[in-house]
Amino acid sequence: MSTEALSPAEARLLFRSGLVTPTAGWAAGYVQADLIIVPKEQAFDVLLFAQRNPKPCPILGVLNPGETSGPLLAGGDIRTDLPRYAVYVDGEQVADPTDITQYWRDDLVTFIVGCSFTFEAALQEAGIHIAHIDQGTNAPMYRTSIRCQPAGRISGPLVVSMRPIPAAQVADAVRITSHYPSLHGAPVHVGNPGELGIADLGHPDFGEPVEIREGYVPVFWACGVTPQAAVMESKPSLAIGHASGHMLITDARDSSYLV
Amino acid sequence: MSTEALSPAEARLLFRSGLVTPTAGWAAGYVQADLIIVPKEQAFDVLLFAQRNPKPCPILGVLNPGETSGPLLAGGDIRTDLPRYAVYVDGEQVADPTDITQYWRDDLVTFIVGCSFTFEAALQEAGIHIAHIDQGTNAPMYRTSIRCQPAGRISGPLVVSMRPIPAAQVADAVRITSHYPSLHGAPVHVGNPGELGIADLGHPDFGEPVEIREGYVPVFWACGVTPQAAVMESKPSLAIGHASGHMLITDARDSSYLV
Repeated sequence: MSTEALSPAEARLLFRSGLVTPTAGWAAGYVQADLIIVPKEQAFDVLLFAQRNPKPCPILGVLNPGETSGPLLAGGDIRTDLPRYAVYVDGEQVADPTDITQYWRDDLVTFIVGCSFTFEAALQEAGIHIAHIDQGTNAPMYRTSIRCQPAGRISGPLVVSMRPIPAAQVADAVRITSHYPSLHGAPVHVGNPGELGIADLGHPDFGEPVEIREGYVPVFWACGVTPQAAVMESKPSLAIGHASGHMLITDARDSSYLV
Repeated sequence: MSTEALSPAEARLLFRSGLVTPTAGWAAGYVQADLIIVPKEQAFDVLLFAQRNPKPCPILGVLNPGETSGPLLAGGDIRTDLPRYAVYVDGEQVADPTDITQYWRDDLVTFIVGCSFTFEAALQEAGIHIAHIDQGTNAPMYRTSIRCQPAGRISGPLVVSMRPIPAAQVADAVRITSHYPSLHGAPVHVGNPGELGIADLGHPDFGEPVEIREGYVPVFWACGVTPQAAVMESKPSLAIGHASGHMLITDARDSSYLV
């Protein structure tokens, strides 16, 4: 069976059994998600940061303190069911394990955060090419000069991802992504990186650069790296995320977030 | 100047100066909101309850612990700017003051929660009559047999408000309210109160009954009483809400929540 045709539960079981791979293209039609796990004492600030900055921080679900499963991963275990994790102590990455059971504590709260895979699939279905997918890399992402609304100890800049879109398809790209308001939604900016404080599109802060061809317009979407970067800047004693591109495959269908 | 034409800041100043009145119809075009204030130790559970139950609990803003103003009430003071409050100790109402300065503590967190006034105005503009407004009462509200997703110590039933709509206008009512997803949005149910566990529409749990005339269909929307009722059932040491119908008039325009 192709990885695209696997169910989310089948994919999670493979990762639990030790398979390590980026998850792009797996379990087509199902929502993939970022992971942010912090101790309970930081959890209110994280949830409030997300409430105040919903475009970059679309919370799909929150597990109770100590809980390792939930409706988005029925029968699953958040400690083993992603292919790879990133573990941070005092804001510095200390490990990238394929299983976080040894780090687990009863006071850890898991945040499941929407990512752009869902709207990228919708853009592709509409015939809009995504440059970084065509070249097999991560989207270029940039710290902007726009500050998020802080919450308690958590603050940071809005991080955006950029996709070059043919001028004739920009309106379609806006319209299509606006139908997924809880998965980053419509772009935050179209066309002028300078207004976002981005000096050079060729040097992204995260991911890889992509070529912007003649007749293409750079379009910027709020990015799920925003909350991760802000949380890490607050230097929590322990925090765990997914490793880049190694996402949680949830049981939620992309279509359930279409409005 | 008519109360309808007042700005939100002018209205809040009048209430701060001692005027006591229900706020329906005041400052037309601006969002009115419910209030839930709890100590910081309960705040994560309240915010998580709202995240898990967004239809009945549309959070418009959260003030930092101890903070008494914010962008939704620029220059205002949450302790004085509503015409009347309800104060609860251990889940029991103990007072209904017009000013809560004497109860204020530095650990209190204010939640500003959307209400149905915005979509009711949009329904009326579309020529749909609202029975309880025509008869000058509060909407009839019912505890349903649907349980909300609990969060920590907070749990309770979904509470719905009911508006009888002419059968020919039900689709319009659904369509119009669906454009306000962060202010309760589309109905949760159309037509059959029994399926919600409502035995008798003539005996609402909150508000007043309205007549359902021949050819009208009872339509049910998620109601902002839901979080208030659930929070009070958890018997927080102190909680403060708005008095029924005596809302916070915010600086946000109704149109800013239209999608």
